[in-house]
Amino acid sequence: MSDLPQSVQINEEGPREGFQFEKGPIATTRKVELIDALSQTGLNHIQTVSFVNPRRVPGMADAEEVAAAFARRPGVAYTGLWLNEKGLERAIDCGRLDLSGSISLTASEPFLERNQNRSLADNIAMQHNMIRLYQRHGVPVERGSLMAAFGCNFAGNIAVDAVCDMVQQMLDIAEEHDITLKVVSLADTMAWATPRSIKEVVGAVRERHPLLDIALHLHDTRGMGIANAYAGLEMGVSIFDSAVAGLGGCPFAAHKGAAGNVCTEDLVFMCEEMGIATGVDLDALIEAARLAEDIVGHPLPGSVKMGGSLDGMRLRAEAH
Amino acid sequence: MSDLPQSVQINEEGPREGFQFEKGPIATTRKVELIDALSQTGLNHIQTVSFVNPRRVPGMADAEEVAAAFARRPGVAYTGLWLNEKGLERAIDCGRLDLSGSISLTASEPFLERNQNRSLADNIAMQHNMIRLYQRHGVPVERGSLMAAFGCNFAGNIAVDAVCDMVQQMLDIAEEHDITLKVVSLADTMAWATPRSIKEVVGAVRERHPLLDIALHLHDTRGMGIANAYAGLEMGVSIFDSAVAGLGGCPFAAHKGAAGNVCTEDLVFMCEEMGIATGVDLDALIEAARLAEDIVGHPLPGSVKMGGSLDGMRLRAEAH
Repeated sequence: MSDLPQSVQINEEGPREGFQFEKGPIATTRKVELIDALSQTGLNHIQTVSFVNPRRVPGMADAEEVAAAFARRPGVAYTGLWLNEKGLERAIDCGRLDLSGSISLTASEPFLERNQNRSLADNIAMQHNMIRLYQRHGVPVERGSLMAAFGCNFAGNIAVDAVCDMVQQMLDIAEEHDITLKVVSLADTMAWATPRSIKEVVGAVRERHPLLDIALHLHDTRGMGIANAYAGLEMGVSIFDSAVAGLGGCPFAAHKGAAGNVCTEDLVFMCEEMGIATGVDLDALIEAARLAEDIVGHPLPGSVKMGGSLDGMRLRAEAH
Repeated sequence: MSDLPQSVQINEEGPREGFQFEKGPIATTRKVELIDALSQTGLNHIQTVSFVNPRRVPGMADAEEVAAAFARRPGVAYTGLWLNEKGLERAIDCGRLDLSGSISLTASEPFLERNQNRSLADNIAMQHNMIRLYQRHGVPVERGSLMAAFGCNFAGNIAVDAVCDMVQQMLDIAEEHDITLKVVSLADTMAWATPRSIKEVVGAVRERHPLLDIALHLHDTRGMGIANAYAGLEMGVSIFDSAVAGLGGCPFAAHKGAAGNVCTEDLVFMCEEMGIATGVDLDALIEAARLAEDIVGHPLPGSVKMGGSLDGMRLRAEAH
């Protein structure tokens, strides 16, 4: 009936997303507690912290302390985020993370200017600089990320051809440094995508670049996250970024515009119920999602942490 | 790429769902205010109240007053719900509703027993009785509804063949009274469906009954509502029940298990953004969703009422 993959790779971004976004202070020990809980679920890729300016993002001032304290579990890659050389150096110095570099472009110049105060040309120059830095430090570069790939609050619709051209630019940038990108991540940064545009854009990128794996980084601001993930699955996409409990978003109007990532346990529920292996223990993940809610102290968007998994109900139904 | 319909029929169930579900008392005037707001959005089918035992459902004790007070707008069908002869008589007596009857079966006997204290055989006998009543009062019967069509908390998985057999039973019941059902509604009453099972069940029912229109009644308890609606659209389903703001559900853990219908404005957003006509003014509907939230006094699940529509952003982006 479609091209659903047999299994998916889920990159958990909840700790980094959540601790960065939340207004109130969160104790370092509680951040570590969540990372350790996620390590027990079968997730094999957890983004833990970001090394950004503590004056601009106070919630991440303890990045080094968090990185020093969580328990590294074999088979799990613990990653971090940085935006510049200083951030990368902090990530390297902490000595606790599985580092990998990426090339990051944005499909919308107006967004790039507002968000990072950079022109497209400046941004390309910066990518070359970062790659040189990665290479100097022996950090592998395997992934390209394209922000605003499905539309932009400031540029409006993004043409499919423009997305394909930007992907080509990423490959060209990589090639100048003798790097072959394995994965390109298409990010719906401002939640403009629908299942239809997911299929159109993924289909077009795959046609131009058949050897490249496509990942989806989906936001749920308009409630399309899981439907968009399903559209991606139908196109054979098997790599997704997501956040436990939808950390980074909030169902309160007071946090209006909070653009949370698609929720990990809802995504795992959908995949496993459709016979797509995630490697994740859904009930353990639901516990971690409830822990995340307890840590931030307010409701978080995910649904399955409230609705519950079905396996227990199946067992009880069979027992009757 | 798929079989998406050109347009969809959306049956709004928010007022009835919400006023029935909410714990606190809601003033009759505010209920009327919401129905009147929904009447201005382009929705052409609004379920307003249910005529049920006021001792069991105190929130619906004012059903007649609500029905007497809203402004009937031409082109909009205002419907109600009842569970027995007494309820139907109240609906007829109020003289303000567009009445239509349906045949209602349940794919899970354990659920039927727990929910309505009836066996499958009792329930079939009751359907015959209700049809005789409809015919005596000149109420048309065009729709069959099958509850728990995708799984059940008490019976577990429901076999696709069993669903097809129950649909055949509905057609047989109708035929005994010289009625030809036009629509069968498949209800995911306990939120067990995934996009994959939606496709399997809809596909199987359509193969057995190619002349029957299929409607989907989807709950969002596990966050699959919009993805399941998309899977339905891909199968050519063009009739959906939904609730503005996701009324009937709640993102609070305190209302755990609240099985809200899929959210109307999120569904309209997805359809319109994919080029599927709904006849609904999304921005007016978002206003109605915010009104619903104000009326119930707590956050409601829908996302687009927070994330906003895209048309305004497109206009602003073009103006720059």
